[in-house]
Amino acid sequence: MAKLQLALDGDLQGSLEVLEKAHPHVDIIEIGTPLVFREGMRAVRAIRAAYPGLRLLADLKIMDAGEAEADIAFGAGADMITVLGLSGDETIQGALASAEKHAGQVMIDMMAVTDLVARAAELMGLGCDLLCLHTAHDQQSRRGSPWRQLAQLREAYPPLSLAIAGGLSLEVLTQILPHHPQIVVVGSAITAAADPGLAARLIHEGIRQYGDA
Amino acid sequence: MAKLQLALDGDLQGSLEVLEKAHPHVDIIEIGTPLVFREGMRAVRAIRAAYPGLRLLADLKIMDAGEAEADIAFGAGADMITVLGLSGDETIQGALASAEKHAGQVMIDMMAVTDLVARAAELMGLGCDLLCLHTAHDQQSRRGSPWRQLAQLREAYPPLSLAIAGGLSLEVLTQILPHHPQIVVVGSAITAAADPGLAARLIHEGIRQYGDA
Repeated sequence: MAKLQLALDGDLQGSLEVLEKAHPHVDIIEIGTPLVFREGMRAVRAIRAAYPGLRLLADLKIMDAGEAEADIAFGAGADMITVLGLSGDETIQGALASAEKHAGQVMIDMMAVTDLVARAAELMGLGCDLLCLHTAHDQQSRRGSPWRQLAQLREAYPPLSLAIAGGLSLEVLTQILPHHPQIVVVGSAITAAADPGLAARLIHEGIRQYGDA
Repeated sequence: MAKLQLALDGDLQGSLEVLEKAHPHVDIIEIGTPLVFREGMRAVRAIRAAYPGLRLLADLKIMDAGEAEADIAFGAGADMITVLGLSGDETIQGALASAEKHAGQVMIDMMAVTDLVARAAELMGLGCDLLCLHTAHDQQSRRGSPWRQLAQLREAYPPLSLAIAGGLSLEVLTQILPHHPQIVVVGSAITAAADPGLAARLIHEGIRQYGDA
């Protein structure tokens, strides 16, 4: 059954308020890139302290200095970090080495990768086992959400763990879940909802019902 | 004459200690990506407060949400931010819109861009006027430093403002300066020097002597 990852892109106080309502329905908490930029690892430490039992992903979108930058987030208490699939193989390898040291996990963000299937093969060859199909926020109106990419990679590499992100909401679950993503990333459909707890619960139940069907 | 940009990639305390010695010889202070990850905008605000007269660049390497992420750094007091040249045109445009609101400047990091001259033309068409030729830290042993790329872009677009970054030191100035970069970015050759003040002074003087020659 897919896990629900809640992406927090606001400020720390607002994110903690959203979490207070949404956390029972969330599997992975994402410290989004804007929150990392605002607060640095203080955001990771604060959310780690408040929710010691939940998985924490720091969305660093690492592009260089893979090992050193991954070390920063794992050292602060993150369980998972992101690296851009566009980055060089040495950067990917550095991040994987850091993950191994810290018993952490690397998610590769495939944003703007053009030849998805070929790059996925290279990344699997390097030892990556979790890729995220991610439609850039700035391109969501133009490109729509990336479930076609999800279908394409799921078909090419059935055992690969896949996450999907970018403008996702309750309405699109029926288009996503048939392709068996391991992680569904939702941001503003929860954080900007009138009732973030209810929104998270409905999405989580939607995922569970599909898994039970 | 080229400006000297000092890239600070360590922790905040160590960076402030380096700046205390090096600042008289520095034109632009770079809050490096690892320092942003560690401290968030606290690093920008602390260095802004300590050196109100120096230009500050936040090396965010923005890949998405261009306007919102640039707003975070300009709002915290940065004069300049970086965006990846690999990012989508909407992201570049968003960052440029943020820069215009804040009277700030956008530096495009050309790291991992394959067709440099073609992408530079597109970026200039979007309104970018400052590009950084940047050899990834993780690829420096393999690729060497990027002065050939600097020469190539300088020849293609003589009026474009160019920065050069990635493993630069006093020894390579003579290979870089003939191609008239507007900004020379130096990190560990100053921050890891036995005497960071002396290292910064020698590099700054090297640049000045070339400019006067």
